Amino acid sequence: MQAEIIAVGTEILMGQITNTNGAYMAKQLAALGIASYHQQVVGDNAQRLADAISLAEKRSDIVILIGGLGPTPDDLTKQTLAAHLNLPLVEDADAMAKLAARVKQQQRPMTPNNKLQAMYPQGADILVNRVGLAVGAWVEQHQHAYVLLPGPPKEFIPMVDHELLPRLAKYSGHHEAFVSRVMRFFGVGESQLVTDLGDLIAKQTNPTLATYIKDHEVTIRVTASGETQADAEAKLEPVIGAIMEREGRYFYGYGDDNSLAKELVKALVATDKQITAAESLTAGAFQAALGDVPGVSDYFKGGFVTYALATKAAFLNIDARELAAHGVVSEFTAKAMAEHARQRAAADIAVSFTGVAGPDTLEGQPAGTVWIGLARMGQAPVAQVYHFPGGRNDVRKRAVMTGMMIALKSLRD
Amino acid sequence: MQAEIIAVGTEILMGQITNTNGAYMAKQLAALGIASYHQQVVGDNAQRLADAISLAEKRSDIVILIGGLGPTPDDLTKQTLAAHLNLPLVEDADAMAKLAARVKQQQRPMTPNNKLQAMYPQGADILVNRVGLAVGAWVEQHQHAYVLLPGPPKEFIPMVDHELLPRLAKYSGHHEAFVSRVMRFFGVGESQLVTDLGDLIAKQTNPTLATYIKDHEVTIRVTASGETQADAEAKLEPVIGAIMEREGRYFYGYGDDNSLAKELVKALVATDKQITAAESLTAGAFQAALGDVPGVSDYFKGGFVTYALATKAAFLNIDARELAAHGVVSEFTAKAMAEHARQRAAADIAVSFTGVAGPDTLEGQPAGTVWIGLARMGQAPVAQVYHFPGGRNDVRKRAVMTGMMIALKSLRD
Repeated sequence: MQAEIIAVGTEILMGQITNTNGAYMAKQLAALGIASYHQQVVGDNAQRLADAISLAEKRSDIVILIGGLGPTPDDLTKQTLAAHLNLPLVEDADAMAKLAARVKQQQRPMTPNNKLQAMYPQGADILVNRVGLAVGAWVEQHQHAYVLLPGPPKEFIPMVDHELLPRLAKYSGHHEAFVSRVMRFFGVGESQLVTDLGDLIAKQTNPTLATYIKDHEVTIRVTASGETQADAEAKLEPVIGAIMEREGRYFYGYGDDNSLAKELVKALVATDKQITAAESLTAGAFQAALGDVPGVSDYFKGGFVTYALATKAAFLNIDARELAAHGVVSEFTAKAMAEHARQRAAADIAVSFTGVAGPDTLEGQPAGTVWIGLARMGQAPVAQVYHFPGGRNDVRKRAVMTGMMIALKSLRD
Repeated sequence: MQAEIIAVGTEILMGQITNTNGAYMAKQLAALGIASYHQQVVGDNAQRLADAISLAEKRSDIVILIGGLGPTPDDLTKQTLAAHLNLPLVEDADAMAKLAARVKQQQRPMTPNNKLQAMYPQGADILVNRVGLAVGAWVEQHQHAYVLLPGPPKEFIPMVDHELLPRLAKYSGHHEAFVSRVMRFFGVGESQLVTDLGDLIAKQTNPTLATYIKDHEVTIRVTASGETQADAEAKLEPVIGAIMEREGRYFYGYGDDNSLAKELVKALVATDKQITAAESLTAGAFQAALGDVPGVSDYFKGGFVTYALATKAAFLNIDARELAAHGVVSEFTAKAMAEHARQRAAADIAVSFTGVAGPDTLEGQPAGTVWIGLARMGQAPVAQVYHFPGGRNDVRKRAVMTGMMIALKSLRD
């Protein structure tokens, strides 16, 4: 059983985007034990795309097409595959309803190009798009399987995980049932994780382990197959246990549609606690990340961006002379920011960030030096210093995520 | 003149590494105006690699092989290409001396695999490796050019930049000089831009126009070639003028490495003005984006995240009853937030955001309804309502970018 990935998009050929989807898909194929000896990239051109499909089906059993399902005239992957397989395109009622609602919300007319997003080659299995409007498809014909997947990674990854992988496992497979769990870690590098778990990864066959790094966090997808769901689940558990035993202190949650911010909001809901923040170098990024989570408004009423010393004093009622005496990059300032913000916002818990994003040094401290404070009602505030690697925005991003991890652990304690 | 990139490496097929070299090479080809309609990825397998070369030379003039030049037994790109072209491999004296010195330093024996790194197909131009040991090569045969490049990006990029690009420009070229400019737009969709500029795009040959959409903004890369730099520049100008005439109101700046936040900070510097913000639904994202720009701290001292009605009143000293009477999603609230934030932060200009991020409605207003306020010292505050499409975080992101565009235009006025 061989699979071949065809990434479709002139943007890839022009180098405007990197083919990260190809890498993600390839990793999943490898984890499932499906061989892949070729990949192709073609532009948004029907003839060249049809040629690429013809070439792929000569040498591979599964042809995976990524990209070109959108509403613009240069999105033609779906039409091209359907024509190649001599199948008409038909409408999916659910996807069409979702599309119609979106079009109505935007007060735009429904164009034929737009409608194509809700269509699929007749006889295909729909691959549901949980994030966007374009449906994917799984088509079997003449001993081959053909797959249509959307290009935007935020649509592509959930569709692969939830819709495609079970079908691939079954199609390639020995086993009927297939379970997979994503474990999320922050504060540990991928290479360290791979080293720590080297023996588990080396002997992987069932379950398989696939690590993935993005935006400073690492995920491990653990995938098991078996005769039944329960059988597969049973194979999963001991491996997850072994991973937790070694890496539990970096683990923060399960699931591919998860984030530190989501887990933090879940913990706020569970403990019924209000959060606030006072941000210097992160300039609002911690609070903005909280705001990403729907429903946060019951647990987060507002906070402060205190970029300069003067605003730290003025917005938070901290003594300006004391601030000046201790400096911006100090334990005192981190603690004072957290505790004063907590009181000003009448919150249960507050996180503060103060330090050196870079590129320049500040108060003689190198870029990457960050104090993160934590204030909790009825407890003395605490603060800890970090030395984050990377450029200005890596430092700021890591600071935000570390602050979330600190708040999360404190709420879970 | 067409070029085709073949990335060689089982690690790419397994998803262990992402094909960033392919994207880098593709971008350079596009900038040189060399068409590229196909890319391939093959593993470290001589037969499949030879097949990939055969396929590429049928449809492309330039075949660029990346990876597989190293000293391990699975590195076989150089041997495979040499065999395909029926050329013997010969030693490069300089590279061999460098290799011998390295081997001696490491006190290892010189193996035949090792020696291969310093060899090249007879008659080829050596592409010097400034970083590593494996030489690249440029081979011309039967109206085709074949290129061998190393896989590690730190070796690959300098070889492309210093050794390959001048040869590519000469080989492809009628022209010696290339200039390219990226124009950035916000507030207009890619499809509308493509429609508006349809005639310019249709007749493009020199300059060429390439549109690209990412993160809610659209860029157009205009690339011209000529006998001299000045000649190419002269071709660029009228096309840029024509684009500006039609789309100037959405244009905000030039350059690959630019953003609304960077242009806004530039405008703050140029006018020596202080900015602040009061953010409700955006929850700090506007301020965090300002914080992304190094050097902003002289023009942004801090601001407010006022997510709840109570914090809008408390942090900004706005009358709570008036707020309640007008509601969160209102012109009054947007104006009051902006003006009070400006005064509290002693800033020259303030932007405010209040509205419905979604997914639920608020005060009977649909998700996507956002009021953005602008306060300027010595002027009455103003506010405008928007109806942004998309999900919660699209709405928030568009709100932030619209606020930046508003502030930018006001500073440029």
